[in-house]
Amino acid sequence: MQKGALCYEGKAKKLYTTDDPQLLWVAYKDEATAFNGEKHAILQGKARLNNEISSMIFTTLAEKGCPSHFVRKLSATEQLVKRVTIIPLEVIVRNKVAGSLAHRLGLKEGMQLAEPLVEFCYKDDSLGDPLVTEDHIAILAAASQAEVARMKEQALRVNELLSSLFARLGVILVDFKLEFGKTETGALLLADEISPDTCRLWDEKTGARLDKDLFRHELGNLQEGYEEILARLSTSSS
Amino acid sequence: MQKGALCYEGKAKKLYTTDDPQLLWVAYKDEATAFNGEKHAILQGKARLNNEISSMIFTTLAEKGCPSHFVRKLSATEQLVKRVTIIPLEVIVRNKVAGSLAHRLGLKEGMQLAEPLVEFCYKDDSLGDPLVTEDHIAILAAASQAEVARMKEQALRVNELLSSLFARLGVILVDFKLEFGKTETGALLLADEISPDTCRLWDEKTGARLDKDLFRHELGNLQEGYEEILARLSTSSS
Ligand SMILES: Nc1ncnc2c1ncn2[C@@H]1O[C@H](COP(=O)(O)OP(=O)(O)OP(=O)(O)O)[C@@H](O)[C@H]1O
Ligand SMILES: Nc1ncnc2c1ncn2[C@@H]1O[C@H](COP(=O)(O)OP(=O)(O)OP(=O)(O)O)[C@@H](O)[C@H]1O
Ligand SMILES: [Mg+2]
Ligand SMILES: [Mg+2]
Repeated sequence: MQKGALCYEGKAKKLYTTDDPQLLWVAYKDEATAFNGEKHAILQGKARLNNEISSMIFTTLAEKGCPSHFVRKLSATEQLVKRVTIIPLEVIVRNKVAGSLAHRLGLKEGMQLAEPLVEFCYKDDSLGDPLVTEDHIAILAAASQAEVARMKEQALRVNELLSSLFARLGVILVDFKLEFGKTETGALLLADEISPDTCRLWDEKTGARLDKDLFRHELGNLQEGYEEILARLSTSSS
Repeated sequence: MQKGALCYEGKAKKLYTTDDPQLLWVAYKDEATAFNGEKHAILQGKARLNNEISSMIFTTLAEKGCPSHFVRKLSATEQLVKRVTIIPLEVIVRNKVAGSLAHRLGLKEGMQLAEPLVEFCYKDDSLGDPLVTEDHIAILAAASQAEVARMKEQALRVNELLSSLFARLGVILVDFKLEFGKTETGALLLADEISPDTCRLWDEKTGARLDKDLFRHELGNLQEGYEEILARLSTSSS
């Protein structure tokens, strides 16, 4: 597999073409951003941690019948994925109240939700990724009604699998964000990454944050938290 | 009917008890506020204009089989209404893109929507009345699923009636906000006001704003716009 031209540089990853037009070469970056890019830092080792963690999570999901764009790990900081056209929606699943849900609605952080909540945000940095209803999604033509229903279903399935995976590791999956894309044949496919950058992970016993909130709210060393998640995931899979 | 104690003073109206515990005395105020109270002014005559207009609109809706809390006009600036417990949701109906919908989603002001859009916002000034999905409404216990469905249905019916009423007067009903309440028996009832404070009304020919945007964006004399709406409504009902 040959790494080709850079085709997209985001805040957390670089995407390169490969000799197969259907595949992309993803290089994770040692970069952390928060609050829509306002807060920014280089954090040594983050690329490796997120690449290792997301590779393990995508592998576990595939084993449980939940496929994704993930093909294989290429190096400590790189992975090979299937190229998709990303649907411009962030699909958020929440088990407990935290972050924007707490702030927007004045709900107490940590409140258990009676059932998992799925939210959609319109992926547009200049608009600050606003929350949208299914009617807004139709107006924006961001996805069809059937796609919305399938993303919701798949996101809830991922939530079930990851919640129990993390529960076995003494970690509460508070919430997470997924992105989906469409393959050339129009099939919906889970894409992007699943890592402590895109999940809220709380230690079950101490409540310690083991995710990007360490960086967002300066609650401790980000790499130590991510290292802890990687260590626990590694024991479970060995 | 006796006016009793002040029981609520809002930004646009004062509510008083009456000798009937089921009825409230509403006194409209010569006050205009916008952007969650940031912009503020006293505008002579606004109380009369909104009281006259909302009385006429509620009367027309009732004639067309759409009841509301409105009982009768008491004076130029006052009206009698049925007391309800307000459901803490603003129900917004939109026919064209304007205001927060344009800003939040980056859509062009004036864009025609393929079908009327209903949005719900959580009535909480300290949170800035955030947009909510039906799942958020359930978490907030702001209304039951059945109430949400009935509010949506009634709001769309009000939209049909008011859109054609205004169309006959050469006015485009761009969007509007409704509030609903529950009577002692638990019945859902349209409440609050329907006026140029709570609707966007554009002259069909000139596009002139005949609503609170005159004040919000300093587009002209508010009272002249509201007077124009009242004059056109008066011809239609005579
Ligand atoms: N399989 C895939 N095919 C094509 N694009 C993908 C795939 N997986 C993820 N992407 C996209 O690649 C980019 C990943 O980069 P990164 O996460 O750094 O972006 P970002 O800074 O979060 O910005 P944004 O998500 O707003 O574009 C994202 O735009 C993501 O949607
Ligand atoms: N029939 C009714 N019974 C009880 N309360 C009502 C009724 N109709 C309207 N209200 C409430 O009376 C108040 C009207 O006052 P006004 O419109 O000035 O309030 P406001 O400044 O918009 O503030 P807010 O709506 O956030 O309370 C609102 O709180 C409204 O919800
Ligand atoms: Mg990203
Ligand atoms: Mg009001």
